[in-house]
Amino acid sequence: MPLVIQKFGGTSVADPDRIREVADHVARTVRRGNQVVVVVSAMGKETDELIRLATEVSDVRPGREMDMLITAGERKAMALLCMALHSVGVPADSFTGSQAGFITDTNHTNAKIVELRPDRLRKAIEAGRVPVIGGAQGVSTDHDVTFLGRGGSDTTAVAVCHALEGEFCELYTDVPGVFTADPRLVPKARRMAKVSFEELLEMTATGCPKPAMRSVEYARRWGVKLHVRSAFTWEPGTWVVEEDPTMEQAIVSAVTHDTSEAKVTVSGVPDRPGIAARLFRELADVDVNVDMIVQNVSDRGVTDISFTVPRNDLPLATQVCQRLAADIGATGVSSDSAIARVSIIGAGMKSNPGVAAKMFEVLAGEGINIEMISTSAIRISCVVREDEVERAVQSLHTAFELDAVA
Amino acid sequence: MPLVIQKFGGTSVADPDRIREVADHVARTVRRGNQVVVVVSAMGKETDELIRLATEVSDVRPGREMDMLITAGERKAMALLCMALHSVGVPADSFTGSQAGFITDTNHTNAKIVELRPDRLRKAIEAGRVPVIGGAQGVSTDHDVTFLGRGGSDTTAVAVCHALEGEFCELYTDVPGVFTADPRLVPKARRMAKVSFEELLEMTATGCPKPAMRSVEYARRWGVKLHVRSAFTWEPGTWVVEEDPTMEQAIVSAVTHDTSEAKVTVSGVPDRPGIAARLFRELADVDVNVDMIVQNVSDRGVTDISFTVPRNDLPLATQVCQRLAADIGATGVSSDSAIARVSIIGAGMKSNPGVAAKMFEVLAGEGINIEMISTSAIRISCVVREDEVERAVQSLHTAFELDAVA
Repeated sequence: MPLVIQKFGGTSVADPDRIREVADHVARTVRRGNQVVVVVSAMGKETDELIRLATEVSDVRPGREMDMLITAGERKAMALLCMALHSVGVPADSFTGSQAGFITDTNHTNAKIVELRPDRLRKAIEAGRVPVIGGAQGVSTDHDVTFLGRGGSDTTAVAVCHALEGEFCELYTDVPGVFTADPRLVPKARRMAKVSFEELLEMTATGCPKPAMRSVEYARRWGVKLHVRSAFTWEPGTWVVEEDPTMEQAIVSAVTHDTSEAKVTVSGVPDRPGIAARLFRELADVDVNVDMIVQNVSDRGVTDISFTVPRNDLPLATQVCQRLAADIGATGVSSDSAIARVSIIGAGMKSNPGVAAKMFEVLAGEGINIEMISTSAIRISCVVREDEVERAVQSLHTAFELDAVA
Repeated sequence: MPLVIQKFGGTSVADPDRIREVADHVARTVRRGNQVVVVVSAMGKETDELIRLATEVSDVRPGREMDMLITAGERKAMALLCMALHSVGVPADSFTGSQAGFITDTNHTNAKIVELRPDRLRKAIEAGRVPVIGGAQGVSTDHDVTFLGRGGSDTTAVAVCHALEGEFCELYTDVPGVFTADPRLVPKARRMAKVSFEELLEMTATGCPKPAMRSVEYARRWGVKLHVRSAFTWEPGTWVVEEDPTMEQAIVSAVTHDTSEAKVTVSGVPDRPGIAARLFRELADVDVNVDMIVQNVSDRGVTDISFTVPRNDLPLATQVCQRLAADIGATGVSSDSAIARVSIIGAGMKSNPGVAAKMFEVLAGEGINIEMISTSAIRISCVVREDEVERAVQSLHTAFELDAVA
């Protein structure tokens, strides 16, 4: 009997009605002759609520206690979903991360899985029961409860699929799949029937919200087939698969955008070896997550370094840069929050020259100025003004022939 | 260093402000030179909320899943309290029932402790940390999460005090202690500085709401000193101790009342051996919890049997009685919900004759009719009309010299 992993995100189980709908769907899957293992996130916004509560209670929030607190959310959801499954005639048992056999490191609030011992899951499946696992949780090598971090439920599902040799792993969410662009910006955006791991990784890194990047990396490494689909329409979504070298590839598969970042520029930096290393080491030491980095050609022994950071980190990043600028004799630090990144992604790019040129032409044709550029083998990203991003995405979506045919 | 167990009920940790107040109190206790172990219930009405949610989700609610669900409540409270303790400089670690070493039987929703292995608690104490234990939970011999039932946090606290050989166990609640009568009915009711286990057990069985009876039984069996006190005023409350035969005992220590029961009377019962046994066996088989039982003297070969049951169980009890009455040839079954029980309790009653007579005289003097009487060595209970119970309690409280001196 094929074994299928079904993971349901927070919006999929946000209230009692939704939990019953999910139970109905799991029951349908079982009745069609599958063995099913379910992974569930906390209901709706519960994780945020728990974090808010912690903030109200204390300004000191040890990771061990945050993990104990947050994992209570999935615990509720998994017990309730089991009850709903029983009421539609499907025997089911809930399992905490610890009970499911997830051994993690001791890195609280963002633990990594070190081993999965799914003995209890196997026993439940053999007894004809549906295991319902609390997502994103485990027990550390120190026997403490750990949380795998935001998006960790996707990782739980992929790891279970790998360990139990499931056929595939379905990630149910509140959107019908992965789109060629954000449908809120591009009405003609299309659901992609298929996307390669490589492309999806570039997409999640550039503003496409689902699924969690870490889980896609795990899925690629372990060869777990993912199916991103809707828990509201229950229609087929997007399959995430190994790139098939024999199939003809679209040059550009999707256009993504991201308005969550800000740009920092350090000007008049003496062009000496080791300066950039020092800057980004200091930013890393204060946990600022630097994304795009562009350094201009040196002009008369000085250069400008620009980079993007999450907007939340901008004050901290600016502070670090100002200290360093004074130290190394740079002339100034400026920052800009009103930027956006637009990216085109496509596995076919590798064998098709001229894609970058076309992208810049399309943006130029729209009168959109490009402030920064960065590329990978299958992605080109441009930083533009935030208020021009919608037009940028739409024009690129049309130019690369991604628009749905009416 | 003396080891003290402090247990906080739901109202004591109902919101972030309350959790911080509790943390301050634990910190004070630590700074006065005590080792402290904390047991905490779910916040406010959270347990009720979780049960309501389960009811909305499913009409099938397996005990295993209910326990998984409900124990999420204490998990939240204990993690939050730990954070609040850290913020006032007290290192603390939360422990689930399982982590604290509570091994229970597999009787879900109302599990019994079979063993306590407090190794992790001991280690935390030795490291100078305050363990904060989720109340009312454990792990079964089948490795499933179990709930000890309502009031189970008191039991957790008493068991921990026994296992770790604590000095005493403080049960913090929303009232300042145990009173000579319900202060809402009797404005002159006094807080009792001391009460014996025996008396308190009779009091909790007759309408005095706190603490949970099972925990008092455990405390008596294990010789754990209890201190019932307020988490709002933080003033000394009521000590629950072994009866001291050398001290002079009040004849009557308290007057309690209970309006949660109903009376059932089966009339014209043939006075043959085995009839009563059959009646109460059938009631027990459908889980109706019978309390007071009174059988009148046989009159011409027939007798009346009256008993009280929780009002919720009245329809079921009446049904059982009607079936049996037809079967054995009894003449009728009547029921009455508008009753109340008033009880006087006192360890001194054993050596003082005439207490019952005085109780009946006081009630007669008030024109209050007694419908049923039952007694134990240290308690006398009378069933009266519900609308007369307030007057009954007040007059007995005055007559037995329990009123506070103004």
